[in-house]
Amino acid sequence: MNFSDRLHTAVIRSGSTLCVGLDPRWDLLPPEVRTGESLPEQAAAYREFCCAVIDSVADIVPVVKPQAAFFEALGPAGVAALAEVNRYARSAGLLVVLDAKRGDIGSTAEAYAAAYCTGDRSPWSCDAVTINGFLGQDTLTPIVASAEAHGAGVFVLVKTSNPGSGDVQDAALSGRSVSERYAAWIEQQNRRWLNESMSREVGRGLIGAVVGATHPQQLRELRQQMQHAWLLIPGYGAQGGRSEDLAGIWHPDGGGAIVNSSRGVIFAFQERPTDVGWTDYVRRAAQQATEDLNRHRS
Amino acid sequence: MNFSDRLHTAVIRSGSTLCVGLDPRWDLLPPEVRTGESLPEQAAAYREFCCAVIDSVADIVPVVKPQAAFFEALGPAGVAALAEVNRYARSAGLLVVLDAKRGDIGSTAEAYAAAYCTGDRSPWSCDAVTINGFLGQDTLTPIVASAEAHGAGVFVLVKTSNPGSGDVQDAALSGRSVSERYAAWIEQQNRRWLNESMSREVGRGLIGAVVGATHPQQLRELRQQMQHAWLLIPGYGAQGGRSEDLAGIWHPDGGGAIVNSSRGVIFAFQERPTDVGWTDYVRRAAQQATEDLNRHRS
Repeated sequence: MNFSDRLHTAVIRSGSTLCVGLDPRWDLLPPEVRTGESLPEQAAAYREFCCAVIDSVADIVPVVKPQAAFFEALGPAGVAALAEVNRYARSAGLLVVLDAKRGDIGSTAEAYAAAYCTGDRSPWSCDAVTINGFLGQDTLTPIVASAEAHGAGVFVLVKTSNPGSGDVQDAALSGRSVSERYAAWIEQQNRRWLNESMSREVGRGLIGAVVGATHPQQLRELRQQMQHAWLLIPGYGAQGGRSEDLAGIWHPDGGGAIVNSSRGVIFAFQERPTDVGWTDYVRRAAQQATEDLNRHRS
Repeated sequence: MNFSDRLHTAVIRSGSTLCVGLDPRWDLLPPEVRTGESLPEQAAAYREFCCAVIDSVADIVPVVKPQAAFFEALGPAGVAALAEVNRYARSAGLLVVLDAKRGDIGSTAEAYAAAYCTGDRSPWSCDAVTINGFLGQDTLTPIVASAEAHGAGVFVLVKTSNPGSGDVQDAALSGRSVSERYAAWIEQQNRRWLNESMSREVGRGLIGAVVGATHPQQLRELRQQMQHAWLLIPGYGAQGGRSEDLAGIWHPDGGGAIVNSSRGVIFAFQERPTDVGWTDYVRRAAQQATEDLNRHRS
């Protein structure tokens, strides 16, 4: 089954549109997993931490989003741990969106596609990947081709959640902003694929979009422009995005958008009494975020 | 010594401004290094191939640019080979610019900085990294801070060499294109650092710019706007950029720009007679490219 249909199945199964961001940071890990400070020891701690988070949420959320940067900071041992975390998440029944924000051209884009847009054949064991289109639309052609060949998912950065996102994404060419141009392109790609594809029941394509919860007006407009896309929405929770601003974003079937929370879930134990297991806090935070989002979901 | 000064020393030592792009591709490798097709075997072949290229050019060029995507396509074994290739290049006296085009915000940008902008402490053993600013200028703040703390180098994408580069980079905000805005920002950062820094003899900062040889007019204008930056120029050779279009790009001391060639050097052996060693062709192609560039260098 392709990524779009699998994600919808996972949303329905879990009753949740929460995406749990796996952003391990050494100084925030529970003391019980920090057993040594060498890079391989830190990588082992990241693996242990993320796998415990996965165990805590696997039955109540549809998807996790590991952030590649934190693993890359530990060198080759770190990214080896990343691949293991991804495999573990998939074996626990979760979908994996790797937040790598890759983007390049020509044969280099093909290499990124081989790495991250090959579904079950990905050597990184991810179901989908985030893509950065700074180099232009020719960045995306090999990515889309590989995603369609393997039923893999792609989330193109359209409007990110940070304060400086407008520096590039609000810049305009021929009267349309970069965000709007990518939104139009995504809608066009998804419509084409849905027309060509055999699995069009759900009505969403393989090319999703990253649009931040911190820009509610642009989020609504971009949703209008991308009726057939999955949205991956960062910026909810710790970054200030509110669930009430997401009302109307989901499709009538309750799908079409997943909302990421990283710190607010995986580090929810920071204030715990020392005699309470940290994973209980992670699970409770994921449940509370799910309930908060579901209040505004169709 | 910081990256900017080290790069200038390496250019003077080698008498070359050629950057050899390490873009290994399985189907183009010499048959003698392709001994098995599993991912670890392919990774071993990439390592062997790149190290042999390094041996062939270490005394005649200043810098190599491994392209992360090709190694990532082989999974964790591939990027472990990448780290070894980088170490090998540095031990051979070459500088390493890792072409990873990373870019993100906040603590994620800090993690990328820890991975790639920490000089001798980088777990990937690179001296500099390419950075993608799609998310805006707040992408760059942690990168610059880390580069300055460690004397590491950064090359920010300003105008890439591909046909579609204008889709985003030519878009304008307040009358200035994305390329021009980043160019102005880079010049400002380098001037500040040169004013604050103790090593200002050479007059170039740590923040370089990627500007393609395939847009000669924009290249000249962007050079004017970034007098104190190293330029990393892709698009020369196989992509159609010509050395005559680079006249006037270098500084009067012969530094200030490095020009990348990947395929044209590392795969120069494709047409060889079977009884000739492939590394001879690589070395000759590097020498020829250096001579071609030096004809137009001040």
